[in-house]
Amino acid sequence: MPDTFRRRMRKLALLAIAAAGLAGNLPAQPRRTIAPPSVAEDGRITFRVLAPDARALQLNAPWAGGQTALARGEDGIWTLTVGPVAPGIYSYTFQLDGVRVLDPHNTAVKTWSGGNASLVEVPSPEPRPYDLSDVPHGAVHAHYYDSESGGTNRRLLVYTPPGYEKNADRAYATLYLLHGSGDDESTWSEVGRANLILDNLIAAGKAEPMLVVMPNGHPVPWSRNRRGLRSGNTEAFRADLLDAAVPLVESLYRAKRGREHRAVAGLSMGGGQALHCGAGNLDRFAWVGAFSAAARGPDEDEAIGTLLADPQRANARLSLLWIAIGRDDFLLQRNQQLKNRLDAAGINHTYLLTDGGHSWPVWRDYLARFTPLLFRD
Amino acid sequence: MPDTFRRRMRKLALLAIAAAGLAGNLPAQPRRTIAPPSVAEDGRITFRVLAPDARALQLNAPWAGGQTALARGEDGIWTLTVGPVAPGIYSYTFQLDGVRVLDPHNTAVKTWSGGNASLVEVPSPEPRPYDLSDVPHGAVHAHYYDSESGGTNRRLLVYTPPGYEKNADRAYATLYLLHGSGDDESTWSEVGRANLILDNLIAAGKAEPMLVVMPNGHPVPWSRNRRGLRSGNTEAFRADLLDAAVPLVESLYRAKRGREHRAVAGLSMGGGQALHCGAGNLDRFAWVGAFSAAARGPDEDEAIGTLLADPQRANARLSLLWIAIGRDDFLLQRNQQLKNRLDAAGINHTYLLTDGGHSWPVWRDYLARFTPLLFRD
Repeated sequence: MPDTFRRRMRKLALLAIAAAGLAGNLPAQPRRTIAPPSVAEDGRITFRVLAPDARALQLNAPWAGGQTALARGEDGIWTLTVGPVAPGIYSYTFQLDGVRVLDPHNTAVKTWSGGNASLVEVPSPEPRPYDLSDVPHGAVHAHYYDSESGGTNRRLLVYTPPGYEKNADRAYATLYLLHGSGDDESTWSEVGRANLILDNLIAAGKAEPMLVVMPNGHPVPWSRNRRGLRSGNTEAFRADLLDAAVPLVESLYRAKRGREHRAVAGLSMGGGQALHCGAGNLDRFAWVGAFSAAARGPDEDEAIGTLLADPQRANARLSLLWIAIGRDDFLLQRNQQLKNRLDAAGINHTYLLTDGGHSWPVWRDYLARFTPLLFRD
Repeated sequence: MPDTFRRRMRKLALLAIAAAGLAGNLPAQPRRTIAPPSVAEDGRITFRVLAPDARALQLNAPWAGGQTALARGEDGIWTLTVGPVAPGIYSYTFQLDGVRVLDPHNTAVKTWSGGNASLVEVPSPEPRPYDLSDVPHGAVHAHYYDSESGGTNRRLLVYTPPGYEKNADRAYATLYLLHGSGDDESTWSEVGRANLILDNLIAAGKAEPMLVVMPNGHPVPWSRNRRGLRSGNTEAFRADLLDAAVPLVESLYRAKRGREHRAVAGLSMGGGQALHCGAGNLDRFAWVGAFSAAARGPDEDEAIGTLLADPQRANARLSLLWIAIGRDDFLLQRNQQLKNRLDAAGINHTYLLTDGGHSWPVWRDYLARFTPLLFRD
């Protein structure tokens, strides 16, 4: 019996070592399991970090009032409760003894070359258009391509709606959906859930089945173009989109040709790019959306200047110019100025002032409001 | 002039605030930029962390000798050089004042519900089959599907080779490629670069153009099935693969039907699953690959027992049974036992003992060696 016991203990020890090896780590001591942030029914979020030896721990979260200290418990677990916070997805980091780190107990991460962050989702008691629900799902396809302005081995994602494979005779209109300066081509689907939003709206009959193309908005590498706001990147992106991405998509997919079947929209930096590409190329796009846009004035952006200079032509060609901005967004004034200029020039547009700031809960909401308006006669 | 200067400074300050807002963070103080780990020509890796207020900082990296302390410099930057390390990709974490954290200066992250890790790539002076090079690229497609054993809204990825869209009359053989317990369906492409490996081998004429299907190997959620090694998960996965994933792929893609056009291979947990699904279903698969497999003996796995019980039948149906394991792998003994049993039973197989341990450099290499053998007459 002692032999059996010893064998079992030895097997258990080997299994523990194997498990540690599988995880790619050999912890110095057994780790206690701490859950990711918990969200109460009222929307308050509680953060917990096991850090018995830390001297200082703060939460970095602009949406929760900036930098806030966690309190150390006797068990070495630091805690902080914030909110209530409206349903949606939020990013945050910690300062751990002065070092900015991700939440060690939360594996949900937004990655990007500009800096990673941890993610927490505040669920809604009501169904939301971004839920992963039991409706028919479309697919998301990743392609590499080369372009003269963007270089080799660029990547874009294409959403095809449910039924695309079966309806081999049907062609679809296309939304080109552009990300922000802190994102890449995967962020609209992975954080913004653009594919799930379209799945749900299509299932509910609220949006036309459409293709959604998510290109990469940084043809000029971010390291040479901090925040992507320089005009060199905007121009390179326009050429990449028009001369490489659109032809690629229309050669690989059953996309309807012609300006009335193409929309371009984006958030933040991508909102500025959507205005630039849309306003400057109404022969290619009839539908334009700017979400919390890093819009530039006509003095800075020739394309917007051209739009404002000939309102009659613009109104004849724009099926929709849709601008949305949050009351707490640091870009509010710039968008207000754009609206005033459009008003003064008599250019038809929709201007939506909403709650919220410069963040993903707002952008998911804008996409769910914008796409039902597209490609309607 | 002072006015101009003041305006410029004010604009700069606003831009800095805007940039901080765009990044979703408001740092308490300006951050110094520290580069991700640097890799010298000889393969030595230097880690750097800016942590003036930290008291202890260690590297966790089994491939570099386990847990090793970094040394604090007078500038508050901690450094450590390890290696030389062979070309390939490696994961690691830090212990910062006792807390396991990702590298705060490195945005390359392997995410998974079992625990995230930072990634560092040691480049090779020679071209490698996993390089992103200027050859025609295939595409990677993400699909949701439902299955009786795996539940609703499961996700799998499908690689289609270059030319798939243009060669509308051509059908392709299919490799089902299974991940490890610490991975999900995205890991073989995102960390393993399976798509780039196929692109390069196909361009060089070394592998047949084929479909590669990357399903999720955790139909039983990891939280209820630590490390995915329990047999309940293995059986649920087999049913999910055979009854849902294969039919889905063969309905959506131009996949050749029949056992001789299907291969199944995997790493670690997925290697065990590949042996189980392959050995137990030679009516469905003719090609089987086990990379550093968490192989189970015939007493534990009915499928392997059946294979060993009828060697003649197995040899008649197996086009290839390919087993590879690293000399430093903690699963070496188990794979050696499997080889001995196959030898004793007279079952044809290839057994490859290589350098390396239980890690991604090895698995990329195994995929590049295995796929050229597939679907040859």
